[in-house]
Amino acid sequence: MMQSSCWVNGVPAEHISVTDRGLSYGHGVFETLPIEHGTPLLWSLHRARMVSSCQRLGIPIQSVVEAVEQDIRQFLANQTGVLRITITCGEGLRGYRMPDTIVPTRILQYLPPTTYPNEPARVGIKAMLCQQRLGLSPSMAGMKHLNRLEQVLARSEWQTPDLQEGVVCDIDDYVIEGTMSNLFMVKAGELHTPSLDRCGVWGVMRQHLLHLAERESIVLHEGRYRLDDLLASDEVFFCNSLIGIWPLVELSPHSFVIGPVTRKLQALLEASYRVC
Amino acid sequence: MMQSSCWVNGVPAEHISVTDRGLSYGHGVFETLPIEHGTPLLWSLHRARMVSSCQRLGIPIQSVVEAVEQDIRQFLANQTGVLRITITCGEGLRGYRMPDTIVPTRILQYLPPTTYPNEPARVGIKAMLCQQRLGLSPSMAGMKHLNRLEQVLARSEWQTPDLQEGVVCDIDDYVIEGTMSNLFMVKAGELHTPSLDRCGVWGVMRQHLLHLAERESIVLHEGRYRLDDLLASDEVFFCNSLIGIWPLVELSPHSFVIGPVTRKLQALLEASYRVC
Repeated sequence: MMQSSCWVNGVPAEHISVTDRGLSYGHGVFETLPIEHGTPLLWSLHRARMVSSCQRLGIPIQSVVEAVEQDIRQFLANQTGVLRITITCGEGLRGYRMPDTIVPTRILQYLPPTTYPNEPARVGIKAMLCQQRLGLSPSMAGMKHLNRLEQVLARSEWQTPDLQEGVVCDIDDYVIEGTMSNLFMVKAGELHTPSLDRCGVWGVMRQHLLHLAERESIVLHEGRYRLDDLLASDEVFFCNSLIGIWPLVELSPHSFVIGPVTRKLQALLEASYRVC
Repeated sequence: MMQSSCWVNGVPAEHISVTDRGLSYGHGVFETLPIEHGTPLLWSLHRARMVSSCQRLGIPIQSVVEAVEQDIRQFLANQTGVLRITITCGEGLRGYRMPDTIVPTRILQYLPPTTYPNEPARVGIKAMLCQQRLGLSPSMAGMKHLNRLEQVLARSEWQTPDLQEGVVCDIDDYVIEGTMSNLFMVKAGELHTPSLDRCGVWGVMRQHLLHLAERESIVLHEGRYRLDDLLASDEVFFCNSLIGIWPLVELSPHSFVIGPVTRKLQALLEASYRVC
Protein backbone atom coordinates (compact mmCIF):
# COMPACT_ATOMS: atom_id res chain seq x y z
CA MET A 1 0.00 0.00 0.00
CA MET A 2 1.19 3.50 -0.84
CA GLN A 3 2.20 5.53 2.18
CA SER A 4 0.91 9.04 2.85
CA SER A 5 2.29 11.40 0.27
CA CYS A 6 2.11 15.05 -0.45
CA TRP A 7 2.62 17.39 -3.38
CA VAL A 8 2.81 21.18 -3.28
CA ASN A 9 2.32 23.08 -6.54
CA GLY A 10 2.97 19.94 -8.54
CA VAL A 11 6.11 18.67 -6.87
CA PRO A 12 6.61 16.28 -3.96
CA ALA A 13 6.93 18.46 -0.85
CA GLU A 14 5.81 18.40 2.75
CA HIS A 15 6.18 22.06 3.66
CA ILE A 16 4.77 25.46 2.76
CA SER A 17 6.06 28.96 3.38
CA VAL A 18 5.25 30.53 6.74
CA THR A 19 4.09 33.57 4.74
CA ASP A 20 1.33 31.56 3.04
CA ARG A 21 -2.02 33.25 3.62
CA GLY A 22 -3.55 29.83 4.20
CA LEU A 23 -1.62 29.79 7.47
CA SER A 24 -1.68 33.52 8.24
CA TYR A 25 -5.45 33.98 7.91
CA GLY A 26 -6.98 30.68 6.83
CA HIS A 27 -7.31 32.27 3.40
CA GLY A 28 -8.12 29.18 1.37
CA VAL A 29 -10.36 26.15 0.97
CA PHE A 30 -10.07 22.38 1.12
CA GLU A 31 -11.79 19.26 -0.11
CA THR A 32 -11.46 15.79 1.40
CA LEU A 33 -12.69 12.93 -0.76
CA PRO A 34 -12.23 9.25 -1.55
CA ILE A 35 -10.14 8.29 -4.52
CA GLU A 36 -10.65 4.86 -6.07
CA HIS A 37 -8.18 3.45 -8.58
CA GLY A 38 -7.11 6.99 -9.39
CA THR A 39 -10.65 8.35 -9.73
CA PRO A 40 -11.78 10.98 -7.21
CA LEU A 41 -15.42 10.22 -6.34
CA LEU A 42 -18.08 12.87 -6.93
CA TRP A 43 -15.32 15.00 -8.39
CA SER A 44 -17.56 17.34 -10.36
CA LEU A 45 -19.36 18.36 -7.16
CA HIS A 46 -16.12 18.80 -5.22
CA ARG A 47 -14.62 20.79 -8.07
CA ALA A 48 -17.69 23.02 -8.31
CA ARG A 49 -17.62 23.80 -4.59
CA MET A 50 -13.88 24.47 -4.68
CA VAL A 51 -14.29 26.86 -7.60
CA SER A 52 -17.24 28.78 -6.17
CA SER A 53 -15.63 29.09 -2.73
CA CYS A 54 -12.37 30.35 -4.19
CA GLN A 55 -14.30 32.90 -6.21
CA ARG A 56 -16.03 34.13 -3.05
CA LEU A 57 -12.60 34.45 -1.39
CA GLY A 58 -10.90 36.31 -4.23
CA ILE A 59 -8.60 33.42 -5.16
CA PRO A 60 -8.08 33.04 -8.93
CA ILE A 61 -8.91 29.40 -9.42
CA GLN A 62 -9.41 28.36 -13.04
CA SER A 63 -5.83 27.45 -13.90
CA VAL A 64 -5.42 25.91 -10.45
CA VAL A 65 -8.28 23.46 -11.01
CA GLU A 66 -6.68 22.25 -14.20
CA ALA A 67 -3.37 21.84 -12.40
CA VAL A 68 -5.06 19.86 -9.61
CA GLU A 69 -6.64 17.52 -12.13
CA GLN A 70 -3.29 17.04 -13.81
CA ASP A 71 -1.67 16.34 -10.43
CA ILE A 72 -4.29 13.68 -9.71
CA ARG A 73 -3.67 11.98 -13.05
CA GLN A 74 0.08 12.20 -12.67
CA PHE A 75 0.59 11.32 -9.00
CA LEU A 76 -2.43 9.28 -8.01
CA ALA A 77 -3.05 7.04 -11.01
CA ASN A 78 -4.57 3.78 -9.77
CA GLN A 79 -4.38 4.87 -6.14
CA THR A 80 -7.17 4.11 -3.69
CA GLY A 81 -7.49 6.06 -0.48
CA VAL A 82 -8.29 9.55 0.74
CA LEU A 83 -7.27 12.76 -0.97
CA ARG A 84 -7.17 16.16 0.71
CA ILE A 85 -6.86 19.08 -1.69
CA THR A 86 -6.03 22.48 -0.18
CA ILE A 87 -6.00 25.69 -2.22
CA THR A 88 -4.73 28.85 -0.57
CA CYS A 89 -4.32 32.46 -1.65
CA GLY A 90 -0.56 31.83 -1.73
CA GLU A 91 2.25 33.80 -0.18
CA GLY A 92 1.57 37.31 1.02
CA LEU A 93 3.00 40.27 2.81
CA ARG A 94 2.04 41.25 6.32
CA GLY A 95 -1.52 42.54 6.59
CA TYR A 96 -4.94 41.49 5.40
CA ARG A 97 -4.67 43.22 2.04
CA MET A 98 -4.39 40.74 -0.82
CA PRO A 99 -1.15 40.83 -2.79
CA ASP A 100 -1.33 42.59 -6.14
CA THR A 101 -0.37 39.35 -7.84
CA ILE A 102 -1.96 36.24 -6.36
CA VAL A 103 -0.23 32.92 -7.00
CA PRO A 104 -2.41 30.32 -5.26
CA THR A 105 -0.80 27.41 -3.45
CA ARG A 106 -2.22 23.96 -4.24
CA ILE A 107 -1.56 21.06 -1.90
CA LEU A 108 -2.52 17.44 -2.51
CA GLN A 109 -2.24 15.05 0.41
CA TYR A 110 -2.82 11.35 -0.11
CA LEU A 111 -3.73 9.12 2.82
CA PRO A 112 -4.45 5.39 2.91
CA PRO A 113 -8.13 4.36 2.92
CA THR A 114 -9.92 5.10 6.20
CA THR A 115 -11.43 2.08 7.88
CA TYR A 116 -14.29 2.47 10.33
CA PRO A 117 -14.57 -0.44 12.75
CA ASN A 118 -17.97 -1.76 13.78
CA GLU A 119 -19.63 -1.06 10.44
CA PRO A 120 -21.22 2.30 11.31
CA ALA A 121 -23.10 2.53 8.01
CA ARG A 122 -24.80 -0.79 8.70
CA VAL A 123 -25.38 -0.73 12.45
CA GLY A 124 -25.60 3.03 13.02
CA ILE A 125 -23.72 5.32 15.37
CA LYS A 126 -24.01 7.05 18.70
CA ALA A 127 -23.66 10.82 18.76
CA MET A 128 -23.65 13.54 21.39
CA LEU A 129 -25.12 17.03 21.47
CA CYS A 130 -22.22 19.53 21.40
CA GLN A 131 -22.13 22.58 23.64
CA GLN A 132 -20.13 24.45 20.99
CA ARG A 133 -22.36 26.62 18.84
CA LEU A 134 -21.90 27.72 15.25
CA GLY A 135 -21.77 31.48 14.79
CA LEU A 136 -23.95 33.24 12.23
CA SER A 137 -21.95 34.53 9.30
CA PRO A 138 -23.87 34.44 6.01
CA SER A 139 -20.84 35.64 4.02
CA MET A 140 -18.88 32.57 5.16
CA ALA A 141 -21.75 30.05 5.11
CA GLY A 142 -21.49 26.98 2.92
CA MET A 143 -17.81 27.20 2.09
CA LYS A 144 -15.32 24.50 3.06
CA HIS A 145 -12.81 27.22 3.91
CA LEU A 146 -9.81 26.93 6.20
CA ASN A 147 -11.46 28.82 9.12
CA ARG A 148 -12.60 25.75 11.05
CA LEU A 149 -12.11 26.61 14.71
CA GLU A 150 -15.76 26.04 15.61
CA GLN A 151 -15.59 22.51 14.23
CA VAL A 152 -12.30 21.87 16.05
CA LEU A 153 -13.81 22.96 19.37
CA ALA A 154 -17.01 20.97 18.79
CA ARG A 155 -14.99 17.84 17.99
CA SER A 156 -12.90 18.33 21.14
CA GLU A 157 -15.94 17.74 23.35
CA TRP A 158 -15.61 13.96 23.32
CA GLN A 159 -12.77 11.49 23.43
CA THR A 160 -14.58 8.21 23.90
CA PRO A 161 -14.46 6.08 20.73
CA ASP A 162 -18.04 4.83 21.11
CA LEU A 163 -19.27 8.29 20.13
CA GLN A 164 -18.74 8.85 16.42
CA GLU A 165 -20.25 12.26 15.77
CA GLY A 166 -21.60 15.36 17.49
CA VAL A 167 -24.75 17.31 16.66
CA VAL A 168 -23.97 21.03 16.43
CA CYS A 169 -26.53 23.85 16.75
CA ASP A 170 -26.13 27.53 15.91
CA ILE A 171 -26.22 30.34 18.46
CA ASP A 172 -29.99 30.62 17.95
CA ASP A 173 -30.37 26.94 18.92
CA TYR A 174 -31.22 25.67 15.47
CA VAL A 175 -29.78 22.25 14.62
CA ILE A 176 -27.30 22.67 11.75
CA GLU A 177 -25.01 19.70 11.14
CA GLY A 178 -22.50 17.24 12.56
CA THR A 179 -18.95 18.30 13.40
CA MET A 180 -17.71 16.71 10.16
CA SER A 181 -20.93 15.88 8.35
CA ASN A 182 -24.33 17.12 7.30
CA LEU A 183 -27.52 16.00 8.95
CA PHE A 184 -30.80 14.65 7.57
CA MET A 185 -34.04 13.84 9.32
CA VAL A 186 -36.95 11.74 8.06
CA LYS A 187 -40.51 12.39 9.16
CA ALA A 188 -43.52 10.64 7.67
CA GLY A 189 -41.41 9.49 4.75
CA GLU A 190 -40.24 13.00 3.86
CA LEU A 191 -36.67 14.23 4.03
CA HIS A 192 -35.63 17.29 6.05
CA THR A 193 -32.24 18.96 6.25
CA PRO A 194 -31.18 22.25 7.88
CA SER A 195 -30.78 25.37 5.77
CA LEU A 196 -27.14 26.43 5.56
CA ASP A 197 -27.60 30.08 4.64
CA ARG A 198 -26.25 31.46 7.92
CA CYS A 199 -23.63 28.87 8.91
CA GLY A 200 -22.52 25.32 8.14
CA VAL A 201 -20.87 23.63 5.19
CA TRP A 202 -22.62 22.75 1.92
CA GLY A 203 -21.49 19.15 1.92
CA VAL A 204 -20.92 17.46 -1.40
CA MET A 205 -22.58 14.28 -0.13
CA ARG A 206 -25.54 16.32 1.11
CA GLN A 207 -25.94 17.76 -2.36
CA HIS A 208 -25.54 14.36 -4.01
CA LEU A 209 -28.19 12.83 -1.72
CA LEU A 210 -30.57 15.71 -2.44
CA HIS A 211 -30.19 14.93 -6.15
CA LEU A 212 -30.74 11.20 -5.61
CA ALA A 213 -33.79 11.80 -3.42
CA GLU A 214 -35.29 14.24 -5.91
CA ARG A 215 -34.84 11.70 -8.71
CA GLU A 216 -36.77 9.17 -6.57
CA SER A 217 -39.51 11.74 -5.91
CA ILE A 218 -38.85 11.72 -2.19
CA VAL A 219 -40.31 14.97 -0.79
CA LEU A 220 -37.51 17.31 0.38
CA HIS A 221 -37.54 20.15 2.87
CA GLU A 222 -34.76 22.58 3.75
CA GLY A 223 -35.54 24.66 6.80
CA ARG A 224 -34.81 25.66 10.39
CA TYR A 225 -35.17 22.85 12.89
CA ARG A 226 -34.94 22.69 16.68
CA LEU A 227 -33.53 19.81 18.68
CA ASP A 228 -37.12 18.80 19.43
CA ASP A 229 -37.72 18.36 15.71
CA LEU A 230 -34.70 16.09 15.48
CA LEU A 231 -35.82 14.07 18.49
CA ALA A 232 -39.30 13.69 17.00
CA SER A 233 -37.94 12.39 13.69
CA ASP A 234 -38.55 8.83 12.54
CA GLU A 235 -35.00 8.50 11.20
CA VAL A 236 -31.84 10.61 11.44
CA PHE A 237 -28.57 10.22 9.59
CA PHE A 238 -25.25 11.97 9.01
CA CYS A 239 -23.43 12.08 5.69
CA ASN A 240 -20.19 13.18 4.13
CA SER A 241 -18.00 12.22 1.19
CA LEU A 242 -15.87 9.79 3.17
CA ILE A 243 -18.41 8.08 5.42
CA GLY A 244 -21.34 8.02 3.01
CA ILE A 245 -24.45 7.69 5.20
CA TRP A 246 -24.23 6.89 8.91
CA PRO A 247 -27.61 6.32 10.58
CA LEU A 248 -28.01 7.77 14.08
CA VAL A 249 -29.15 5.16 16.60
CA GLU A 250 -28.46 6.97 19.87
CA LEU A 251 -28.35 10.58 21.03
CA SER A 252 -28.35 9.75 24.71
CA PRO A 253 -30.84 9.31 26.31
CA HIS A 254 -32.79 9.06 23.05
CA SER A 255 -32.62 6.16 20.62
CA PHE A 256 -33.57 5.95 16.97
CA VAL A 257 -34.30 3.15 14.57
CA ILE A 258 -32.65 2.81 11.17
CA GLY A 259 -35.59 3.23 8.86
CA PRO A 260 -36.55 2.53 5.26
CA VAL A 261 -35.71 5.97 3.84
CA THR A 262 -32.18 5.80 5.24
CA ARG A 263 -31.71 2.30 3.85
CA LYS A 264 -33.09 3.32 0.49
CA LEU A 265 -30.74 6.31 0.25
CA GLN A 266 -27.80 4.08 1.21
CA ALA A 267 -28.74 1.73 -1.62
CA LEU A 268 -29.18 4.60 -4.08
CA LEU A 269 -25.80 5.98 -3.02
CA GLU A 270 -24.09 2.63 -3.58
CA ALA A 271 -25.71 2.35 -7.00
CA SER A 272 -24.69 5.90 -7.91
CA TYR A 273 -21.05 5.07 -7.22
CA ARG A 274 -21.25 2.10 -9.59
CA VAL A 275 -22.61 4.40 -12.29
CA CYS A 276 -19.91 7.07 -11.75
CA MET B 1 19.00 47.29 8.55
CA MET B 2 18.18 43.65 9.27
CA GLN B 3 16.19 41.96 6.54
CA SER B 4 12.99 40.01 7.19
CA SER B 5 13.79 36.90 9.12
CA CYS B 6 11.92 33.95 10.46
CA TRP B 7 12.34 31.30 13.10
CA VAL B 8 10.22 28.16 13.57
CA ASN B 9 10.43 26.37 16.93
CA GLY B 10 13.64 28.18 17.80
CA VAL B 11 15.60 27.66 14.61
CA PRO B 12 15.88 29.77 11.47
CA ALA B 13 13.31 28.39 9.03
CA GLU B 14 10.84 29.69 6.49
CA HIS B 15 8.52 26.70 6.15
CA ILE B 16 6.08 24.65 8.19
CA SER B 17 4.62 21.21 7.62
CA VAL B 18 1.54 20.99 5.41
CA THR B 19 0.00 18.89 8.20
CA ASP B 20 0.19 21.79 10.67
CA ARG B 21 -3.26 22.47 12.10
CA GLY B 22 -2.59 26.19 11.76
CA LEU B 23 -2.90 25.66 8.02
CA SER B 24 -5.46 22.84 8.03
CA TYR B 25 -8.02 24.59 10.24
CA GLY B 26 -6.61 27.93 11.34
CA HIS B 27 -6.05 26.26 14.71
CA GLY B 28 -3.81 28.86 16.32
CA VAL B 29 -3.33 32.50 17.23
CA PHE B 30 -1.05 35.37 16.33
CA GLU B 31 0.22 38.65 17.69
CA THR B 32 1.70 41.49 15.64
CA LEU B 33 3.59 44.13 17.61
CA PRO B 34 6.38 46.67 17.43
CA ILE B 35 9.77 45.73 18.78
CA GLU B 36 12.18 48.51 19.78
CA HIS B 37 15.84 47.78 20.46
CA GLY B 38 14.89 44.19 21.23
CA THR B 39 11.96 45.09 23.51
CA PRO B 40 8.47 44.07 22.34
CA LEU B 41 6.10 46.92 23.26
CA LEU B 42 3.12 46.23 25.53
CA TRP B 43 4.42 42.68 25.77
CA SER B 44 2.58 41.78 28.96
CA LEU B 45 -0.76 42.54 27.27
CA HIS B 46 0.16 40.63 24.10
CA ARG B 47 1.38 37.70 26.14
CA ALA B 48 -1.79 37.65 28.23
CA ARG B 49 -4.02 37.61 25.15
CA MET B 50 -1.91 34.91 23.51
CA VAL B 51 -2.13 32.73 26.61
CA SER B 52 -5.86 33.13 27.15
CA SER B 53 -6.68 32.56 23.47
CA CYS B 54 -4.55 29.42 23.34
CA GLN B 55 -6.29 28.15 26.45
CA ARG B 56 -9.68 28.70 24.81
CA LEU B 57 -8.43 26.76 21.77
CA GLY B 58 -6.99 23.80 23.68
CA ILE B 59 -3.38 24.64 22.86
CA PRO B 60 -0.96 23.99 25.76
CA ILE B 61 0.84 27.30 25.96
CA GLN B 62 2.86 27.81 29.12
CA SER B 63 6.18 26.34 27.96
CA VAL B 64 5.64 27.92 24.54
CA VAL B 65 5.44 31.42 26.01
CA GLU B 66 8.76 30.92 27.75
CA ALA B 67 10.27 29.65 24.52
CA VAL B 68 8.93 32.68 22.62
CA GLU B 69 10.47 35.03 25.17
CA GLN B 70 13.77 33.20 24.87
CA ASP B 71 13.58 33.41 21.05
CA ILE B 72 13.06 37.17 21.28
CA ARG B 73 16.07 37.60 23.55
CA GLN B 74 18.22 35.33 21.40
CA PHE B 75 17.27 36.35 17.88
CA LEU B 76 15.97 39.90 18.16
CA ALA B 77 18.33 41.53 20.65
CA ASN B 78 18.60 45.23 19.77
CA GLN B 79 16.30 44.87 16.76
CA THR B 80 13.71 47.50 15.91
CA GLY B 81 10.81 46.68 13.65
CA VAL B 82 7.68 44.55 13.59
CA LEU B 83 7.33 41.10 15.10
CA ARG B 84 4.62 38.62 14.21
CA ILE B 85 4.32 35.69 16.59
CA THR B 86 2.18 32.75 15.47
CA ILE B 87 1.35 29.83 17.75
CA THR B 88 -0.44 26.84 16.26
CA CYS B 89 -1.73 23.53 17.60
CA GLY B 90 1.14 21.85 15.72
CA GLU B 91 1.08 18.92 13.36
CA GLY B 92 -1.97 16.72 13.26
CA LEU B 93 -3.61 13.83 11.54
CA ARG B 94 -6.53 14.19 9.18
CA GLY B 95 -9.73 15.26 10.90
CA TYR B 96 -10.79 17.88 13.40
CA ARG B 97 -9.95 15.75 16.45
CA MET B 98 -6.96 17.09 18.33
CA PRO B 99 -3.92 14.82 18.45
CA ASP B 100 -3.40 12.94 21.69
CA THR B 101 -0.06 14.69 22.12
CA ILE B 102 -0.03 18.35 21.11
CA VAL B 103 3.32 19.89 20.24
CA PRO B 104 2.55 23.52 19.39
CA THR B 105 4.39 25.24 16.55
CA ARG B 106 5.82 28.68 17.34
CA ILE B 107 6.77 31.01 14.52
CA LEU B 108 8.51 34.36 14.89
CA GLN B 109 8.64 36.62 11.83
CA TYR B 110 10.64 39.82 11.96
CA LEU B 111 9.91 42.63 9.51
CA PRO B 112 11.53 46.03 9.15
CA PRO B 113 9.71 48.97 10.77
CA THR B 114 6.51 49.98 8.98
CA THR B 115 6.44 53.55 7.77
CA TYR B 116 3.15 55.29 7.15
CA PRO B 117 3.45 58.19 4.72
CA ASN B 118 1.49 61.40 5.28
CA GLU B 119 1.62 61.23 9.07
CA PRO B 120 -1.77 59.60 9.66
CA ALA B 121 -1.52 59.92 13.44
CA ARG B 122 -1.07 63.69 13.13
CA VAL B 123 -3.33 64.61 10.20
CA GLY B 124 -5.92 61.82 10.47
CA ILE B 125 -7.15 59.30 7.91
CA LYS B 126 -9.97 58.67 5.51
CA ALA B 127 -11.94 55.45 5.93
CA MET B 128 -14.78 53.71 4.14
CA LEU B 129 -17.79 51.79 5.37
CA CYS B 130 -17.30 48.12 4.44
CA GLN B 131 -20.10 46.01 3.00
CA GLN B 132 -18.58 42.91 4.60
CA ARG B 133 -20.23 42.09 7.91
CA LEU B 134 -18.79 40.33 10.93
CA GLY B 135 -20.64 37.17 11.90
CA LEU B 136 -21.83 36.59 15.45
CA SER B 137 -19.82 33.90 17.21
CA PRO B 138 -19.41 34.51 20.95
CA SER B 139 -17.16 31.48 21.37
CA MET B 140 -14.67 33.00 18.91
CA ALA B 141 -15.06 36.65 19.93
CA GLY B 142 -12.06 38.60 21.14
CA MET B 143 -9.36 36.13 20.10
CA LYS B 144 -6.66 37.04 17.60
CA HIS B 145 -7.00 33.55 16.10
CA LEU B 146 -6.00 32.45 12.62
CA ASN B 147 -9.58 32.39 11.26
CA ARG B 148 -9.52 35.82 9.66
CA LEU B 149 -11.48 35.49 6.42
CA GLU B 150 -13.98 38.20 7.33
CA GLN B 151 -11.15 40.69 7.84
CA VAL B 152 -9.53 39.60 4.57
CA LEU B 153 -12.77 40.17 2.65
CA ALA B 154 -13.44 43.52 4.35
CA ARG B 155 -9.91 44.72 3.53
CA SER B 156 -10.37 43.67 -0.10
CA GLU B 157 -13.10 46.25 -0.61
CA TRP B 158 -10.71 49.09 -1.38
CA GLN B 159 -7.46 49.44 -3.28
CA THR B 160 -6.98 53.18 -3.34
CA PRO B 161 -4.13 54.28 -1.05
CA ASP B 162 -5.94 57.40 0.16
CA LEU B 163 -8.28 55.18 2.19
CA GLN B 164 -6.43 53.78 5.18
CA GLU B 165 -9.08 51.84 7.06
CA GLY B 166 -12.58 50.41 6.78
CA VAL B 167 -15.36 50.53 9.36
CA VAL B 168 -16.88 47.08 9.81
CA CYS B 169 -20.33 46.34 11.26
CA ASP B 170 -21.77 43.03 12.41
CA ILE B 171 -24.70 41.27 10.75
CA ASP B 172 -27.07 43.12 13.09
CA ASP B 173 -25.69 46.46 11.81
CA TYR B 174 -23.82 47.38 14.97
CA VAL B 175 -20.50 49.14 14.40
CA ILE B 176 -17.71 46.87 15.71
CA GLU B 177 -14.19 47.84 14.62
CA GLY B 178 -11.84 48.60 11.75
CA THR B 179 -10.54 45.85 9.49
CA MET B 180 -7.23 45.84 11.37
CA SER B 181 -7.96 48.06 14.36
CA ASN B 182 -10.39 48.85 17.13
CA LEU B 183 -12.64 51.87 17.09
CA PHE B 184 -13.33 54.58 19.65
CA MET B 185 -15.86 57.41 19.59
CA VAL B 186 -15.93 60.55 21.74
CA LYS B 187 -19.19 62.25 22.64
CA ALA B 188 -19.42 65.15 25.11
CA GLY B 189 -15.93 64.36 26.38
CA GLU B 190 -16.75 60.71 27.16
CA LEU B 191 -15.20 57.71 25.47
CA HIS B 192 -17.28 55.01 23.76
CA THR B 193 -16.12 51.76 22.20
CA PRO B 194 -18.12 48.79 20.87
CA SER B 195 -18.62 45.69 23.00
CA LEU B 196 -16.74 42.73 21.58
CA ASP B 197 -18.68 39.91 23.22
CA ARG B 198 -20.20 38.59 19.98
CA CYS B 199 -17.47 39.33 17.40
CA GLY B 200 -14.33 41.39 16.92
CA VAL B 201 -10.84 41.29 18.36
CA TRP B 202 -9.87 42.45 21.84
CA GLY B 203 -7.07 44.67 20.69
CA VAL B 204 -4.09 45.13 22.95
CA MET B 205 -3.98 48.85 22.14
CA ARG B 206 -7.71 49.13 22.89
CA GLN B 207 -7.08 47.61 26.29
CA HIS B 208 -4.07 49.83 26.93
CA LEU B 209 -6.04 52.96 26.01
CA LEU B 210 -8.92 51.91 28.28
CA HIS B 211 -6.38 51.68 31.13
CA LEU B 212 -4.87 55.06 30.30
CA ALA B 213 -8.29 56.72 30.03
CA GLU B 214 -9.44 55.21 33.30
CA ARG B 215 -6.32 56.51 35.04
CA GLU B 216 -7.17 59.99 33.74
CA SER B 217 -10.77 59.63 34.95
CA ILE B 218 -12.15 59.89 31.43
CA VAL B 219 -15.65 58.39 31.51
CA LEU B 220 -15.75 55.10 29.52
CA HIS B 221 -18.64 53.27 27.90
CA GLU B 222 -18.62 49.87 26.20
CA GLY B 223 -21.83 49.19 24.31
CA ARG B 224 -23.67 48.57 21.06
CA TYR B 225 -23.53 51.46 18.63
CA ARG B 226 -25.13 52.10 15.26
CA LEU B 227 -23.54 53.92 12.36
CA ASP B 228 -25.68 56.93 13.29
CA ASP B 229 -24.00 56.99 16.70
CA LEU B 230 -20.60 57.04 15.02
CA LEU B 231 -21.65 59.82 12.66
CA ALA B 232 -22.98 61.87 15.57
CA SER B 233 -19.71 61.54 17.51
CA ASP B 234 -17.49 64.57 18.19
CA GLU B 235 -14.33 62.55 17.55
CA VAL B 236 -13.60 59.08 16.16
CA PHE B 237 -10.32 57.19 16.08
CA PHE B 238 -8.86 53.78 15.25
CA CYS B 239 -6.10 52.08 17.21
CA ASN B 240 -3.85 49.08 17.16
CA SER B 241 -0.42 48.07 18.44
CA LEU B 242 1.40 49.14 15.28
CA ILE B 243 -0.39 52.34 14.30
CA GLY B 244 -1.09 53.68 17.79
CA ILE B 245 -4.01 56.10 17.39
CA TRP B 246 -5.23 57.24 13.96
CA PRO B 247 -7.93 59.94 14.08
CA LEU B 248 -10.75 59.61 11.54
CA VAL B 249 -11.22 62.77 9.50
CA GLU B 250 -13.40 61.50 6.68
CA LEU B 251 -15.97 58.74 6.24
CA SER B 252 -17.30 60.01 2.96
CA PRO B 253 -19.46 62.09 2.73
CA HIS B 254 -19.01 62.85 6.43
CA SER B 255 -16.02 64.65 7.94
CA PHE B 256 -14.74 64.74 11.47
CA VAL B 257 -12.42 66.99 13.41
CA ILE B 258 -9.49 65.74 15.45
CA GLY B 259 -10.54 66.70 18.94
CA PRO B 260 -9.00 67.21 22.36
CA VAL B 261 -9.74 63.73 23.77
CA THR B 262 -8.01 62.06 20.81
CA ARG B 263 -5.00 64.36 21.17
CA LYS B 264 -4.87 63.77 24.90
CA LEU B 265 -4.91 59.98 24.46
CA GLN B 266 -2.17 60.24 21.82
CA ALA B 267 -0.05 62.17 24.31
CA LEU B 268 -0.79 59.71 27.10
CA LEU B 269 0.11 56.84 24.79
CA GLU B 270 3.43 58.45 23.86
CA ALA B 271 4.20 59.02 27.53
CA SER B 272 3.28 55.44 28.44
CA TYR B 273 5.81 54.11 25.92
CA ARG B 274 8.55 56.20 27.54
CA VAL B 275 7.67 54.69 30.90
CA CYS B 276 7.62 51.08 29.60
